Formats: sequence, structure tokens, C-alpha cells
Amino acid sequence: MQLSGIRVIDLTRILSGPFCTMLLADMGADVVKIETPEGDPVRAQGEIVDGLSWYFASFNRNKRSVQLDLKSAAGMAALRRLIAGADVVVDNFRPGVMERMGLGWEQLRALAPGIVHTSVSGFGQSGPYVDRPAFDFIAQAMSGFMSMNGTPETGPMRSTLPISDLIAGCYAALGTAAALVRRLRTGQGERVGASLVDGLISFGAFASADFLASGKLPVPTGNDHLLVAPYGLFTASDGEIAVAPSNDAVYQKLLHVLELTHLREDPRFATNALRVKHRAAINAHVNMAVSRHDKAHWIATLNTAGVPCGTVMNLAEVYSDPQVLSQQMLLEVEHPGHGAVRMNGFPVKFSEAPCAVRLPAPDPGAHTAEVLREAGLSEAEIAAVSM
Amino acid sequence: MQLSGIRVIDLTRILSGPFCTMLLADMGADVVKIETPEGDPVRAQGEIVDGLSWYFASFNRNKRSVQLDLKSAAGMAALRRLIAGADVVVDNFRPGVMERMGLGWEQLRALAPGIVHTSVSGFGQSGPYVDRPAFDFIAQAMSGFMSMNGTPETGPMRSTLPISDLIAGCYAALGTAAALVRRLRTGQGERVGASLVDGLISFGAFASADFLASGKLPVPTGNDHLLVAPYGLFTASDGEIAVAPSNDAVYQKLLHVLELTHLREDPRFATNALRVKHRAAINAHVNMAVSRHDKAHWIATLNTAGVPCGTVMNLAEVYSDPQVLSQQMLLEVEHPGHGAVRMNGFPVKFSEAPCAVRLPAPDPGAHTAEVLREAGLSEAEIAAVSM
Repeated sequence: MQLSGIRVIDLTRILSGPFCTMLLADMGADVVKIETPEGDPVRAQGEIVDGLSWYFASFNRNKRSVQLDLKSAAGMAALRRLIAGADVVVDNFRPGVMERMGLGWEQLRALAPGIVHTSVSGFGQSGPYVDRPAFDFIAQAMSGFMSMNGTPETGPMRSTLPISDLIAGCYAALGTAAALVRRLRTGQGERVGASLVDGLISFGAFASADFLASGKLPVPTGNDHLLVAPYGLFTASDGEIAVAPSNDAVYQKLLHVLELTHLREDPRFATNALRVKHRAAINAHVNMAVSRHDKAHWIATLNTAGVPCGTVMNLAEVYSDPQVLSQQMLLEVEHPGHGAVRMNGFPVKFSEAPCAVRLPAPDPGAHTAEVLREAGLSEAEIAAVSM
Repeated sequence: MQLSGIRVIDLTRILSGPFCTMLLADMGADVVKIETPEGDPVRAQGEIVDGLSWYFASFNRNKRSVQLDLKSAAGMAALRRLIAGADVVVDNFRPGVMERMGLGWEQLRALAPGIVHTSVSGFGQSGPYVDRPAFDFIAQAMSGFMSMNGTPETGPMRSTLPISDLIAGCYAALGTAAALVRRLRTGQGERVGASLVDGLISFGAFASADFLASGKLPVPTGNDHLLVAPYGLFTASDGEIAVAPSNDAVYQKLLHVLELTHLREDPRFATNALRVKHRAAINAHVNMAVSRHDKAHWIATLNTAGVPCGTVMNLAEVYSDPQVLSQQMLLEVEHPGHGAVRMNGFPVKFSEAPCAVRLPAPDPGAHTAEVLREAGLSEAEIAAVSM
């Protein structure tokens, strides 16, 4: 696999950091999850089946768990031994905590020259908000994302999913992999940072660019597209379809499939700009036409004609969709004592050395002795820190 | 920088692929953007200032542009020469197009042993939907994301921002960097894939895990949190604040700061589960208390007490926020003939070898002769393909 043999000491908990290290572990890194006696709080979150949180299971696959009391000198000594043999350390503590633990950058480098230290934070590693507690919802609010999600009627709306945590985790994994490239070529270590707010700001795309160019604030448009019409959800005989004719050529194809080619003569709809102006009128024509057949008909005929079209799927539909299953986006992972646990597959595909589930999510401290023995600790030293 | 000296041949257009190659270029890769005579359509999209699309400028910084007619034999021959000297090729064509261009995996490998070939697609490189046209909105619909965004009243809602494009671009960059790690250690090349739908499915987080564990479909909760109360937007004397007391200890801190400690005796609010049941009642108490002071008061006092809290910022507020500016998330990039273009900063930070803007987004074909000369083409060969 891509990261086989890369040893990661994972000090993260909850979501953003564990997602980063899951991505690294899925690509073959040996991720050692350090847990305090309390364990990762996610072990007690979400649906618990026979004592196992499937949320925890899905974000901690392919990791080994070492439980250490980091308030004890022996626990910290063991952690330092592990770091000394590692390529990467990942944390999602509030900035300053690593320094207070005696694991600041200079100390890490002294332990392991060439180490890559990756930190996920709410607002970055410096600046006026550096000491604030971070949370996905707050990052959604402070990044501008909420101001653009929803509609003018709903007002600013959070995404139900914790997207700022996940984006930050993804960027942290990217930065880690890139730093490993540099390390392999130069021997140099690196400090990598990703934050919930910065990551979500970077997702502003054309909305950010247009605001910075024009000074005009973007309007949340819900299922309409600010600059394209027709576009959105339309109601077939058995439910809604999403239709996205992205440019004028695709609009012409849409008219053809919907048998609306007579609208080509209508001056109100002659250009996309005019159609945006007459959005309600063109949408009414499309809705009338779409209502004549069922979803399956339109999915087939519109896509064949080159018009992007799909149904709005709930998770039950997603996880039974033939395309999703063909991409192995639903995995069943055998957990000893718990049977098969279903979880998301791998979002990054590799043809030559694909991602794989080598290990189910670990019980707390399941690999304490094994990992410490690999690091060269004596049985007495291991016994001294075992719980 | 992390990827200094890595040569990327970039065949992508629009958003998902160019975002991937922007991330690689920001980290130091030498990205050569191959443009057909028509150029990347994004050059004509978004706010155009003095002939320059700021949207294009922000997603194509740090790249060089080579314009080639890929319908001509000479153009394709020049492209093959460039690929022969590259480490990475990135495309976001529909699956099968690279093969039809004579650039399938075996042909790429023959040209450049050890090449990393990264593809971004709508639905993946195989499966029943492989030939469908892809679009961000359709991926939002088909990944389950829309079914969880919004509220029960609004129904399924798209995010205004093209999150599936951006997530897929981020995963493609991650897969590319990881494949470069393997290549440096083994000499082996790799095919990397990321898709709009798979990427967004992987963002299901606890909603996916809970659905797969319980079979119960998640409810879109807008600004409420399904499992936590109080939580959400509350109205201070001068506007709304987002408050996210993530666990019981933080709830107790919230009560203290809001001077609502008498609620500790109220049996309706004794546990989080009870508060979720009595959400309207506890929210009313919080709103009443919050209304007594302004946003700045609550941002200061709640964060100091450890309760995550922030304002809902629009983009004007984001780009003038002292924290955002301290993290250099707003860049001014000098574009010859256009002056300073404002754009997002770097979402991944490196302390030792930071990301930098080395080049503004290129004019079409600005580097054709330069890049082809580096690849060893003669002046006559360069003249034959120049436009």
C-alpha cells in the first residue's frame, strides 16, 4: 500500500484527527492510537450495538490502540519511546497542549529527527482566537459556509454533517503525505497544520472569488443555481429528480429530450441570462414535461443524452445503489465478538496497491504490550505502564 | 516546499481537477496545465475583472499553461513528450476518454515507467453509471448529502457551494501525494481515483454509522443538533450567535456564564436526553439570557469559559476577521496587467517549507514554448504546435 511501513503515533480523539489518521491507516500506515485511561469519547457516541459504537468502529479501523496514563512519568516516558521510533505524530489538541506535555516541536525533533508533526485545530496554531474551544458548528458559522447554505427564507444554515471536521482531517492527511514526500527526498521533518475554519474557507470556490472581485455578498440559493436556469429539483410522476444542465449546449439537449424544442423560439428563454430572469416560467415548462414520466425514465433518457440527472437518495438508497456497491463504498468488517460491522468504503482508490481493511477498530489498549515490545520496552517497563 | 521538483501534467478543466492540481502546485509541484485551443471554460466564468476571471485566477495559481491542439498528431506527440518527463498525470475526463486519446494506463506506463496517474470522475472508473455525465449537484443528490442538509420543512437541500467537486479534488491530491511516497520507496507507479459521489459518501460520518447500525434514516436538523440541547443559534441584543455546548461539562459552564445555574434543579433539564426532549423550553431560557448582552460580550465570556461560541459571518466579515487574516487566508497576488487579485490562502500550513504563490494564474499558452523547450523539443517542433 502507499504508506506501508510508515509509523504514525496518533494522539487524536473525536473526529477531525481520527479521520486524518484513518485515511493514513487505510493507505497502509501503521497507526498507533494512544488512548488515555478514559479512552476516545467517541467509543460512547452514536449507535452502540452490543457495546460497540459503529461510529467509533468506522473511524478507527486499521489502527492499533495503546492505552497510557499520560499524567504519569512512566506513561509519558513510554510515549516518548514510541515517538522516537515514529515517522509521524498527529494531534488535535488545542494549540499549546503539546508544548505543556513536553512535546513541543524542538522536543519532538530531538526525539525523532525528521519527524512529521501534524496538528488539527479549530482556528490555526496562532492568532487572536488560538485559545478558543473549537467545534464544527462554530467553524461552519465563522467560515462563511452557513451564510451561503440554505435559502433567503431559511437564513444561515448549518450542514447536518460535520463538514469542517472532515475537511480539516482530509487536509491534515494531505499535508502529512506531502511532508513524507519531502522527508524521503531531503531527510527533513515538517510541522503540518490544518484547521476547521481555514479548511472550510478554502471551499468558498466561485462564491469567494466572486465576492472578492465584486464586493457583492453571495446569496444562499438552496436548490436553485444563482447563475443557471433551468436547474434544480423537478417532479417526475413518482418523485423528484435533480437536473443540472450546466451550459447552453446541455440546455438544448434537455429541451430535445423533454420534447420542448418549441421553446427555442421563445424570446424569454433565448439565453441563459434571460432564462435566469424568467426562472419561474422556464421551470414551469420543465416541471410540466418531467411530470409525464417516472424518475427511471428521466434518469435513463437524460443521462444518455448527456444531461446530468439523478435522484435525491436517502442513505438507504445510497447503500443499496448498484454504482455505490460497485465502487465498494459499503464494507462489512468482521469485529471479533461483534460480527460484521458495516461502514463506508475507501474514498481514494488505488489500482496497483489498493486500500484494505487489515484490522478492525481496536478495543482500548488492545495492542499496548505488543506495540511497546516492538519499541524495545522491557516486560517490566511494559508492566509498569499497563492498566 | 513539499513537492518541489515533482512535475505534474494537468489535463483537467473546470473545478474538481484544477482544485487537485492547485493543491499540488501550492505545495511546490511544477504543474503544467494543458489547454486546448478553447482554453479552460472557467476562464469565462464568474466575475470577470478587466478580462480576468478571479475564479480562474484563484484555482490556477502556481501553474504554467501549455496550449496544444490535441486533435492534431503533432499536438498529441508533444503531449506524449511532456508525459515522458513527468511524475504525475491528472485528468478529470469521463472514464474512457484517456484510453481513446491513446493515453490508457499501459500506454502511460510505457511512456513514463513509475508514473502516477490520478483521475477525478463523477461516479468512479467503473460500474453501471460510468458513462453518465457528472455534476456537483447530481453528486450531492446521489450521495445522501442533500437528504441530510436542510430541515424537515425545507426538504432535501443542496449546498450552494460545490462541495463534492472540492472534496473529490482534495482526495485526488491526497491519493497523488501518497502514491508519490510509494513511488519514492519502491519505484512503482500507481493509478489513483477519486469521485464526486464516493467522496461525499465518505463525509457521512456519524449519520452513516448510525444508519448502518440502526437502519433508521437520519433527519436533517438544520441548526439544531439531533442529539444535543441546548445547541444552535441564539439571539443576542445585536444579532445571532452560534453556541455548541458539546457535552454535559460544557453545558454546566454555559449555565454558569448565562447566570442560569438555577436550572440545575429543573428536572426537565437534568440530562442531555431530557433537554433534547424539552428542547424548546431550554432554548427559550438560553435565548432570554443571551438577549441581555451583545454578541461581543458572549463571544468573549463563553469562549473564555470553554463554551464554543461564534458569530455567523458572511464573506465580508470572514475576510476582515483578525483570525482569518492572521492565518493569511486572504492573499493578494499580483497579476501582470491586472494588478492585485485577492483569493483564498493555503488551507494546509507547513512551518519549515511553507506553501507560496510563485506564479499567478497563466494566460492561455503562456508557457508553451518554455515548457516544450525544457522537454527537449526543437524550435521547429515547437513552432509546429504553437498557436
